[in-house]
Amino acid sequence: MTDTTHKEAQHLHRLILFSDAVFAIAITLLAIEIHPPEHWTSVADLLSQMQHKLMAYAVSFAVVGVNWIAHRRTFSRLRRADGVLDVLNLLMLGLLALLPLGTELLWENGTAASVMVYVGLVTAIGLAHALAWGYAALFAGLSEPMPAAEKAYVLTRVALLPGLMCGLTFLSIITHTPWGWLGMAVVVAGLSLVNRLMARRVQPAAIHAAEG
Amino acid sequence: MTDTTHKEAQHLHRLILFSDAVFAIAITLLAIEIHPPEHWTSVADLLSQMQHKLMAYAVSFAVVGVNWIAHRRTFSRLRRADGVLDVLNLLMLGLLALLPLGTELLWENGTAASVMVYVGLVTAIGLAHALAWGYAALFAGLSEPMPAAEKAYVLTRVALLPGLMCGLTFLSIITHTPWGWLGMAVVVAGLSLVNRLMARRVQPAAIHAAEG
Amino acid sequence: MTDTTHKEAQHLHRLILFSDAVFAIAITLLAIEIHPPEHWTSVADLLSQMQHKLMAYAVSFAVVGVNWIAHRRTFSRLRRADGVLDVLNLLMLGLLALLPLGTELLWENGTAASVMVYVGLVTAIGLAHALAWGYAALFAGLSEPMPAAEKAYVLTRVALLPGLMCGLTFLSIITHTPWGWLGMAVVVAGLSLVNRLMARRVQPAAIHAAEG
Amino acid sequence: MTDTTHKEAQHLHRLILFSDAVFAIAITLLAIEIHPPEHWTSVADLLSQMQHKLMAYAVSFAVVGVNWIAHRRTFSRLRRADGVLDVLNLLMLGLLALLPLGTELLWENGTAASVMVYVGLVTAIGLAHALAWGYAALFAGLSEPMPAAEKAYVLTRVALLPGLMCGLTFLSIITHTPWGWLGMAVVVAGLSLVNRLMARRVQPAAIHAAEG
Repeated sequence: MTDTTHKEAQHLHRLILFSDAVFAIAITLLAIEIHPPEHWTSVADLLSQMQHKLMAYAVSFAVVGVNWIAHRRTFSRLRRADGVLDVLNLLMLGLLALLPLGTELLWENGTAASVMVYVGLVTAIGLAHALAWGYAALFAGLSEPMPAAEKAYVLTRVALLPGLMCGLTFLSIITHTPWGWLGMAVVVAGLSLVNRLMARRVQPAAIHAAEG
Repeated sequence: MTDTTHKEAQHLHRLILFSDAVFAIAITLLAIEIHPPEHWTSVADLLSQMQHKLMAYAVSFAVVGVNWIAHRRTFSRLRRADGVLDVLNLLMLGLLALLPLGTELLWENGTAASVMVYVGLVTAIGLAHALAWGYAALFAGLSEPMPAAEKAYVLTRVALLPGLMCGLTFLSIITHTPWGWLGMAVVVAGLSLVNRLMARRVQPAAIHAAEG
Repeated sequence: MTDTTHKEAQHLHRLILFSDAVFAIAITLLAIEIHPPEHWTSVADLLSQMQHKLMAYAVSFAVVGVNWIAHRRTFSRLRRADGVLDVLNLLMLGLLALLPLGTELLWENGTAASVMVYVGLVTAIGLAHALAWGYAALFAGLSEPMPAAEKAYVLTRVALLPGLMCGLTFLSIITHTPWGWLGMAVVVAGLSLVNRLMARRVQPAAIHAAEG
Repeated sequence: MTDTTHKEAQHLHRLILFSDAVFAIAITLLAIEIHPPEHWTSVADLLSQMQHKLMAYAVSFAVVGVNWIAHRRTFSRLRRADGVLDVLNLLMLGLLALLPLGTELLWENGTAASVMVYVGLVTAIGLAHALAWGYAALFAGLSEPMPAAEKAYVLTRVALLPGLMCGLTFLSIITHTPWGWLGMAVVVAGLSLVNRLMARRVQPAAIHAAEG
């Protein structure tokens, strides 16, 4: 391994550690603005008074969690990092760090407008992530060897999934129907299927590359 | 080591780092809502006014600490991670991140109902942890080779210990008797004994597996 | 590798991890004091009411991001760490941790005086960083082998760039002209050019050192 | 390396990462309760109004920094970790996480009583750290091979230094004389000298152990 390659791998390692720390802080801060109500009589009363806050917390926790898992997946396909990836990744983290604010908006003001702002923020995080991946895999060649079709598939999944899941969740909550959850299950199952099909087709090439 | 095995080990490593960051933030945030009283005359007066808050802080710090130690122990037995473990681990972290809120509840409102909510939260954390371990060790085969009996023992200890310790602590504090502390000492000593007996019986197999 | 060399490399590793955690926390806390307004009618109204806060957030996020990238770059050139570097790095982190406070100042009070304090803080962070690098590379010999001219170039870039970028950004925002952005583009392009020229001249020596 | 030894080294690694995260969060949270005053006329006025808060911040930042450096030093001498070290280290971190609260006490209420509480807290952190080191090095044999005299010296330095430095700093600030700073310089210089003398005497043994 040349000195330069080693440094770029180190760079990627430090970028991942930094991102993980931001994810961890953002996910933990989601709960910090939630305070118990001043007066409550029973456990049922407490939970009913805090229902909106806890629901908003659960949704945002899931959003950060889904984005962390997506980040772990895309970055496990990278071999190196560069300065542009630093900037695009920071852009994504900068939007992610606004989620506690978006969550507060959600529980203080349950109007359609605040839901729109929230879904917009989640979509923007997904797009920034897709931008980072697209740059790294399609433009700068920072990923491990993989077919262009798979690169494009990862791009689509990363860019669209968080916004889609978020929208479908709200659909279920607002309409009080299970259609959103059902739609989400279909999307997850479908993507998982495509993922496996692709893995089967790609495996030999990947192993070949790893051995080469 | 094949490319896939290496990636799954990397996955586990990143999962542990992320969890550690969440544990560290949750444990540090426990103290952030504690503020000194506006008026106090002497150090004894200050401590007596802050007694409830400091007690609640100490209990919650111990709860997060016990869970961190349990997490370190279970995850040191794992060899790999997968997407489902990510989700179950996130579930556990999502409950853990609510502990600062539970702690606030505890000191602002010392009623039996708030203690019940708190113990319920701690128990839920333990159950989510047990779910993650049960999936990883019994279902998905992510752990190092170990006898099924030991897997089940770890499951029981991880699932029940935090809730049990928390309940016994409150028993001691509320009844002003040492029975809770005594019970806890018995439980810890008993588990430690079982642990050692099991380690002695398991060791040769484990070393064999490590050498194989 | 002798035991001492190994320990000094370990030391550097832990110093970097600790710094990354502080960077990550500082960047995430920037958003924590931002709360949505009490009354707002539409998304456009919300964004217009929050405009100053979001602008200040974006600027500070960029400042921490630029400093993180600079830190990653300078520390990737180091081979070892010592106690003095610990202290100088802590000094830099101590100033960085004041950025959320500086950001609050910026949005609550848009006067020239608060901008001055803010730019002063950013400049101080850059100077502390330059002090750490200057000590490590020029005085204590903690860096990898590199020509003295390159050491001095890194010093200048690290010390001046954050303050300069910050000043030019404010110039653009306050005067409502693109001159600041233009100036920044020129500076970045110029430094990037010098960087490449230097890399070309240095490469053979660096590779030689890595092989030696 | 046997499987057990590898696991204990992993254990130590994870313990250090977790501690670093807690140190980083505690040091960054020190600034979060500091807000700018509502009314101020000039930069000089702002700084004079915030003087006490910034002074308390600087002192606490130095205290956490000194403890982080001490922790890095003691833990770099360890080879393994065990469950008791986990608990003692958590005790130290639990006291450290109270420093933001102690800092608030310091700036809101500049009386001798609040200084006493603060110095007491800093001393308690040092004692908990010394307890962890004493257990690991003198009792459980978790450290690298080193003479008993050196183990005892590290114990003394770690236990007494933070409290001493903190006390001397306050002496200087309260009496408006340089004697405290002078005393601190003497202590640091003295310890640094003993450190070097000891290192010279110990080096051959350490290298021998590393080679063995």
